[in-house]
Amino acid sequence: MKSPKLTLVGAGPGDPELITLKGIRVLQDADVVLYDALANPVLLEHTNPWARKIFVGKRKEQHALSQEEINTLITSLAFKYGHVVRLKGGDPFLFGRGMEEIEVARALGIEVEYVPGISSAIAVPGLAGIPLTHRNLSRSAWIVSGTSATGEITNDLRHAARSEATVVVLMGVGALDEIVRVFTSENKENTPVAVIQNGSLETQRVAVGTISTIAGALAQAQLGTPAIIVIGNVVKFYTGQEEAVKGNEQGRLQ
Amino acid sequence: MKSPKLTLVGAGPGDPELITLKGIRVLQDADVVLYDALANPVLLEHTNPWARKIFVGKRKEQHALSQEEINTLITSLAFKYGHVVRLKGGDPFLFGRGMEEIEVARALGIEVEYVPGISSAIAVPGLAGIPLTHRNLSRSAWIVSGTSATGEITNDLRHAARSEATVVVLMGVGALDEIVRVFTSENKENTPVAVIQNGSLETQRVAVGTISTIAGALAQAQLGTPAIIVIGNVVKFYTGQEEAVKGNEQGRLQ
Repeated sequence: MKSPKLTLVGAGPGDPELITLKGIRVLQDADVVLYDALANPVLLEHTNPWARKIFVGKRKEQHALSQEEINTLITSLAFKYGHVVRLKGGDPFLFGRGMEEIEVARALGIEVEYVPGISSAIAVPGLAGIPLTHRNLSRSAWIVSGTSATGEITNDLRHAARSEATVVVLMGVGALDEIVRVFTSENKENTPVAVIQNGSLETQRVAVGTISTIAGALAQAQLGTPAIIVIGNVVKFYTGQEEAVKGNEQGRLQ
Repeated sequence: MKSPKLTLVGAGPGDPELITLKGIRVLQDADVVLYDALANPVLLEHTNPWARKIFVGKRKEQHALSQEEINTLITSLAFKYGHVVRLKGGDPFLFGRGMEEIEVARALGIEVEYVPGISSAIAVPGLAGIPLTHRNLSRSAWIVSGTSATGEITNDLRHAARSEATVVVLMGVGALDEIVRVFTSENKENTPVAVIQNGSLETQRVAVGTISTIAGALAQAQLGTPAIIVIGNVVKFYTGQEEAVKGNEQGRLQ
């Protein structure tokens, strides 16, 4: 019987080819895989047929298990079966709560490893033609999660709105009103914005506009979750093959 | 003869297993590969034996080709040989100047594609045990390049220093004095800092300290480039196997 081990593996943004070689190698060694709603289940085909696959996905209004229940499950399964792979959408250390899972496992003497994943924060805008940085437009990127983009995070959002950084909000649709309010109060009404749903997948859909028009464009497009918001002048590079729903004339990009 | 095409491929932070499946598939199809100093040359083994491999690496004080020369080379090689793959360290759209290469190619009617890479900004801290975000310590991440961290970027750095974000500076060692000055002026002398050289590779070396001690720790460790700077309370999770050179008692982490 193998000694207990936990490996956090980043599954990338959705496209099953956007996992790393190392991630696949770890999946092949797994005795148990605990996977997220944001991790593409096609990736489970890399595992052994006898490996246990358990869905612990969290998605808004659809909590399969609480974080505490997941932590408990990881440790008990590691002691029972050996190598537990936690397959998480994007990268485990950027809003993945990966360190919380590591802390619990480590406290019980379980060996832990981290395999980075392609973060949706960078790749999803990129796959829609939007680079986070560009020599002439943006020299930094600021990444925040929408699930904490109200309340205590608002101060950080205000600092970001005052900067020239490209701002990326993961899982941000629920926080859009707050985001618009903060950017508007910093006189950034005309800053371009894109909202990208199902980025990297064939089902990708995009709405574009400005701070002042994006809420209307989003409603018109009837975008769902998960979606990523990109704010900044680099949004002008948006070149999706699909027709994006655009804001009104004021918000239309050149 | 194939029609001209340019694909930007992210090579990841250094470990050759941290490239994506899609990246490998693209390398296998390449007629020409132009690769960076930051992309691991081991990755060239994925190409056909007959594919042309050209080093165009840029590294501080060691410019093989200017960006303009690279742009020209890409387009002329695409018209001459077909599929040109531009293999870039990290992700091509985060300080990779990837969009500039795309703009030049697109203007000449060359088809372009982007394959995301594992960004060093997230993975290198993560592989040293440092998550960019943590529920109780940091709710956002702000990524900037040190090569522009003087002059016009200082305002953005100031906004970041005022926020609670984890700040990551790529290629930042040359800008360390400026970074320390900005954070000190925002009363962040005691904020933990890690500097990580050759992250993800066996040659990885780390110096840790605080804003007030990191310069000394770095000098003592004699770290070279490329190196990444991580600033924020999440640095307390640093757990490198190697012994990090620490700052003096004031800067020592708990």
